[in-house]
Amino acid sequence: MSQTLTERILGGSAGEYIDRRVDRAYVHDGTGVLTVEAFHSMGVQRGMNPEKISVLFDHICPANNGLTADLQRELRQYARSGGMIFSDCGGGICHQIMSEGCILPGEVVVGADSHSCTGGAFGAFATGVGATDMAAIWASGETWFRVPETIGIKLEGRLSGAAEAKDLALSVVSRLGMEGATYCALEYSGEGAGTLDMEDRLCICNMGVETGAKNAIFYADQICREYLGSYGHDIALQIQDDCSYLREITIDLDDIVPVIASPHRVDSGRPVADLAGTGVDQVLLGTCTNGRYNDLQRFAGIVRGKQVKIRTIVVPASRDVLLRATRDGILADLIAAGCTVVSPGCGPCLGMHNGVLGEGEVCLSTANRNFKNRMGVGGSIYLASPGTAAATALAGYISEPEVWE
Amino acid sequence: MSQTLTERILGGSAGEYIDRRVDRAYVHDGTGVLTVEAFHSMGVQRGMNPEKISVLFDHICPANNGLTADLQRELRQYARSGGMIFSDCGGGICHQIMSEGCILPGEVVVGADSHSCTGGAFGAFATGVGATDMAAIWASGETWFRVPETIGIKLEGRLSGAAEAKDLALSVVSRLGMEGATYCALEYSGEGAGTLDMEDRLCICNMGVETGAKNAIFYADQICREYLGSYGHDIALQIQDDCSYLREITIDLDDIVPVIASPHRVDSGRPVADLAGTGVDQVLLGTCTNGRYNDLQRFAGIVRGKQVKIRTIVVPASRDVLLRATRDGILADLIAAGCTVVSPGCGPCLGMHNGVLGEGEVCLSTANRNFKNRMGVGGSIYLASPGTAAATALAGYISEPEVWE
Repeated sequence: MSQTLTERILGGSAGEYIDRRVDRAYVHDGTGVLTVEAFHSMGVQRGMNPEKISVLFDHICPANNGLTADLQRELRQYARSGGMIFSDCGGGICHQIMSEGCILPGEVVVGADSHSCTGGAFGAFATGVGATDMAAIWASGETWFRVPETIGIKLEGRLSGAAEAKDLALSVVSRLGMEGATYCALEYSGEGAGTLDMEDRLCICNMGVETGAKNAIFYADQICREYLGSYGHDIALQIQDDCSYLREITIDLDDIVPVIASPHRVDSGRPVADLAGTGVDQVLLGTCTNGRYNDLQRFAGIVRGKQVKIRTIVVPASRDVLLRATRDGILADLIAAGCTVVSPGCGPCLGMHNGVLGEGEVCLSTANRNFKNRMGVGGSIYLASPGTAAATALAGYISEPEVWE
Repeated sequence: MSQTLTERILGGSAGEYIDRRVDRAYVHDGTGVLTVEAFHSMGVQRGMNPEKISVLFDHICPANNGLTADLQRELRQYARSGGMIFSDCGGGICHQIMSEGCILPGEVVVGADSHSCTGGAFGAFATGVGATDMAAIWASGETWFRVPETIGIKLEGRLSGAAEAKDLALSVVSRLGMEGATYCALEYSGEGAGTLDMEDRLCICNMGVETGAKNAIFYADQICREYLGSYGHDIALQIQDDCSYLREITIDLDDIVPVIASPHRVDSGRPVADLAGTGVDQVLLGTCTNGRYNDLQRFAGIVRGKQVKIRTIVVPASRDVLLRATRDGILADLIAAGCTVVSPGCGPCLGMHNGVLGEGEVCLSTANRNFKNRMGVGGSIYLASPGTAAATALAGYISEPEVWE
């Protein structure tokens, strides 16, 4: 049997400990501050090429208070003076920016954020690390990994009806459980994988970590090649061999229906229909899971010409997403429908600004986590797709989305 | 001698105490909470028609923390259940929404915010009141005023070169001083007034309170009539009589040049040229002073096709402003130039979110106040026009704007 894609990239077999040169390392405004602090405490020189390091402000942008502003000023100066790639407030979410032509197939990518697994959509090994590990990577340009066992997820068929990639992602988390793939790689393959566009794959890989997985990965195929080609990259395709998995599951995409996860567990997904009618105070469209162009497009397609009934916050994942949606009229549709568009970044997902929940308030969010108090103490979070979010915003209560046009 | 416009509207002569029915009363998310509390403590019934009361969320929208969210939820429910006009997060700044077809000539308008003087642009008596006064107005539908003495400001000529209405507003404040017109009405008239559009007049009246004035006012002329006509109102013109002023000053608009006020006084205005080259960390385009469509248009006209060098936060004054700017390409120009657009409202002007300054940071803002620590403890604020803000954003230091196209 051949190696899994993760084994091929890491150059070792499951269970082995290996050292690997890191191709790209990135931090955001939150972990960046901690990384610099850890780096200084190590008393070492930076060995990693600064052009491979990105510092991307997204968590609390623009600053919500003086302390945040102070920390961001220091990190901004550090990144600029060090020649690192830097994206200031308004640029967007680190994972999204990295997915806009930065991460390439076969690379080893580490981000100081748990959702760094997002980049696996490009056939890269992408995973989150802590700030101390990141500081050591800045120093040495490399790190060690225990090569993960791989769970194979074979996709058949094609998404249909009102189902979206997010519904598949929630279904996978619910099927595996929140600790069901701890330290494993989730390797997506099969003919169904080829029906998913890059934005779908980014959404799916993004939620990989919600099963405890070390990384999630798709093979770089023609769709990936075309996507990265639009950013000027000419990539080689990754061909799947007959590899050995720890476990393999098969999912028929035709079976996926709109799914919603209830407070406070990500793996509590069930059909939206089961919860239809539940009252909601706020809808959030955005985050590293579902703040991309096609998410805004899907949402706008449903609310266009109508009015949302509850406060609805839209957070484009990046400046590029926002610009594209602005130029083609999607943003105008969202604004005219009564949505509140905030600046690109993480928005209220982490409960720090731009839509924190009050005691007892309920949010239907397109994000990836609904842990207790995450968006505000005493608030509750349901997780669903952009389509379900749009239908819910129009109704004022949880509603099933209409079929894709 | 005839009465001044303020005396005519209030129905009394300067120095008299009068009772007047209030035509419109509005609060925002900050003062609304205090007003409801005061109202409840009075143990009275509401006597004022709820359709004349507006509750407009703008100060910290969307909520920056759980307490804010809790207070907003209560106020939201109160406004909706009471049949008041309600604008939720994302609708925009109270003064701007009131200026979009709500305030009419000759009306007595009170807002629980010091910049409620903005509405004087329509030939209304518009002034700020405290939350306790507002609660009493909700109860009785009326209030008392000491009719203010009026300072006449006669405008001649026409703004030219790179000068904007904001430069006139800053010049007036600097000429009168921050306490130079305490409890007076500022009455603008003269041929020069007729050259200013409604957005200019709103900007100028908005800054009236910075001289200590009770209100600022323009006569409703053909320009006002056309503006309100676009909102479906057919108004009578207000014709100036030969009235008696406490004091009268004459300003030739041709003499106005780009002006900047330095930290921490609004009346410290001097030519931008005097401070050219001063380093700036952040630019803010927005607020009830300069977040209107023509402000965004002016700014975009300068930055279009270029890149801002420092972080630049744009806060459209209302959903309508944002929608218009989105539909006609101005917003795309701002985004493409590197600006960070946050949701309509007060933005970081009051130092609560979306761009708070850090220790030692400098902001060039189009707002109306540069008091010490207002946008963040240890931060400094320069006040200037949208044109000066755009030129400064491109340069990274205080710069004179180019001439209007």
